Amino acid sequence: MNDRFLRACRREPVDRTPVWFMRQAGRYMAEYRALRAKHTLLDLCHTPELSLQVTMQPVNALPVDAAILFADILLPLEPMGASFEFAAGEGPVIHEPIRSRAQIDALRVCDPHEGLGYVLESLKLIRRELNGRVPLIGFAGAPFTLASYLVEGGKSAHFVKTKTLMYREPEAWHALMEKLSTVVAKYLVAQVAAGAQAVQLFDSWVGALSPQDYVTYVQPHVARILAEVTTCGVPVIHFGTGTATLLEHQRDAGGTVIGVDWRTPLAPAWDRLGNGVAVQGNLDPVLLLGPRDVMLRQATDILTSVKGREGHIFNLGHGILPETPVDNVRALADLVHSLTERA
Amino acid sequence: MNDRFLRACRREPVDRTPVWFMRQAGRYMAEYRALRAKHTLLDLCHTPELSLQVTMQPVNALPVDAAILFADILLPLEPMGASFEFAAGEGPVIHEPIRSRAQIDALRVCDPHEGLGYVLESLKLIRRELNGRVPLIGFAGAPFTLASYLVEGGKSAHFVKTKTLMYREPEAWHALMEKLSTVVAKYLVAQVAAGAQAVQLFDSWVGALSPQDYVTYVQPHVARILAEVTTCGVPVIHFGTGTATLLEHQRDAGGTVIGVDWRTPLAPAWDRLGNGVAVQGNLDPVLLLGPRDVMLRQATDILTSVKGREGHIFNLGHGILPETPVDNVRALADLVHSLTERA
Repeated sequence: MNDRFLRACRREPVDRTPVWFMRQAGRYMAEYRALRAKHTLLDLCHTPELSLQVTMQPVNALPVDAAILFADILLPLEPMGASFEFAAGEGPVIHEPIRSRAQIDALRVCDPHEGLGYVLESLKLIRRELNGRVPLIGFAGAPFTLASYLVEGGKSAHFVKTKTLMYREPEAWHALMEKLSTVVAKYLVAQVAAGAQAVQLFDSWVGALSPQDYVTYVQPHVARILAEVTTCGVPVIHFGTGTATLLEHQRDAGGTVIGVDWRTPLAPAWDRLGNGVAVQGNLDPVLLLGPRDVMLRQATDILTSVKGREGHIFNLGHGILPETPVDNVRALADLVHSLTERA
Repeated sequence: MNDRFLRACRREPVDRTPVWFMRQAGRYMAEYRALRAKHTLLDLCHTPELSLQVTMQPVNALPVDAAILFADILLPLEPMGASFEFAAGEGPVIHEPIRSRAQIDALRVCDPHEGLGYVLESLKLIRRELNGRVPLIGFAGAPFTLASYLVEGGKSAHFVKTKTLMYREPEAWHALMEKLSTVVAKYLVAQVAAGAQAVQLFDSWVGALSPQDYVTYVQPHVARILAEVTTCGVPVIHFGTGTATLLEHQRDAGGTVIGVDWRTPLAPAWDRLGNGVAVQGNLDPVLLLGPRDVMLRQATDILTSVKGREGHIFNLGHGILPETPVDNVRALADLVHSLTERA
């Protein structure tokens, strides 16, 4: 079994630096586009056999060292009572954005075995299909990022409504964060029980906050989730973007591995975080659009900067972009492996 | 004359910390909305008498310590040959986004006295009208930020086309940056000649870049602009958002004052920048939507954190949002003045 990803999470020596890619299953792959032509994104998520197929596509096509469940961070919102859809070209649209305490009180703290049983079923199928080839990563959205979609109604540039709720109605905000955190913690624990060998918490948009606001409005909730999930004994990756000034606070909230985006150079970030955690990252996803030599040079710079330290998982600073040529992804994974081969 | 803004730029002692606000003239003011009901945004920019009126609105209504020219960072694109419009609710739309070297070669390096004479005329009118009440700030967009609009065709989430041009065609990229920089430098120098007593360079979106890419693709151009403008002898504010990992590189590129957004706590940012520069910032603009006590508490925290240091200009971390109550802006300016009054 290829266990270099799990070993790196635990900061143990590895034969080569492990590599996987956020959104490694996705629109940049012809196999994925072929399936999407026949099914909606939500259908792919809702149907374990399809989620299995999509999850396996990059594992079969590319030398990645981990599989990651194909799902969406918003899925838990459905059984909580907040329906949404993916509008063509626009991303998620929440049907009834949350603007009042009453709506927050009405959210259901669902049991993942009921409302999200299909995700757990997907994990079981994937784990069986992988049969030890590479470890399986589960994931969930972090409560700030989920709350931002719920409150804004979709993507946001400035998170005005989210922050306004936070500042104006801190009790309502914390009630919302507590409900989301309870669901996310149970969901991640259930994912581990269903076969996930590591999990990643995506706090993708938390970089919109000042450190002071992060500590006040977000950190306690993330800390609670990560404390609960850590009892499962699997590595936990704690990821966000735009987090240059939040890294120490994120580390304090928890996580075996801290994910860093491309804006923060990896080696000094790791120095700040200390040797108690592994790190994941952090090439700018746009570099994968080419030219290849620029991409490989910058990836080499990252690998060189942390050479000799145990606990680096190579990844991008955010998800693979739909326009990415598959050959560049393969060349990048190959470079990571060849440059880091140990005697 | 109220010169505390200019004194703070030069890190000289001041009677009170100066305060002004990015977008202090704008939609949050009823006076502005009344004018906008009769004129387009571009008409307001193009007509010196209207630009004067809008510029004066916050100076007359609020205890701000500086006036800033009412204009738009995209105005220089028009005489360069790249036409655009402001689409309702969508922000700027560039009619023919730049995608080829030929389009870059076709851009005109315009003389600001010709293509942008109306801006210079506005500055003269404003300076006369101000009559020494507060200093007048001119401004321009920085070349990366302007290039991102030109290449993407408008606002962007990931700057994929901009970065791709940068990585794939570095010669074309640098040619574009050189043309923009030549125009921006001349434009700022002309603004000073027309009456601007300080200028701000807005590199609003440069935080999308890694430090490595900033140094390679942007810094030399910004440094050239700032070197040229500095010869005018007026303070230069160098501003961006999401710049937590770029600050030292921005300082090295130049500027009398470094503008910092709310993601980067001001005191440690200033420690990193050193005592050779003044700093401007950095309250989260969303805090101005209220409640007022939370806004005032966080503003107090900022002021306390840099108390006793010469060279702080209070501002937001980015522009005032349209939904902002005017009374909150006034309360914030009053707080800055009352908390920082020197014996």
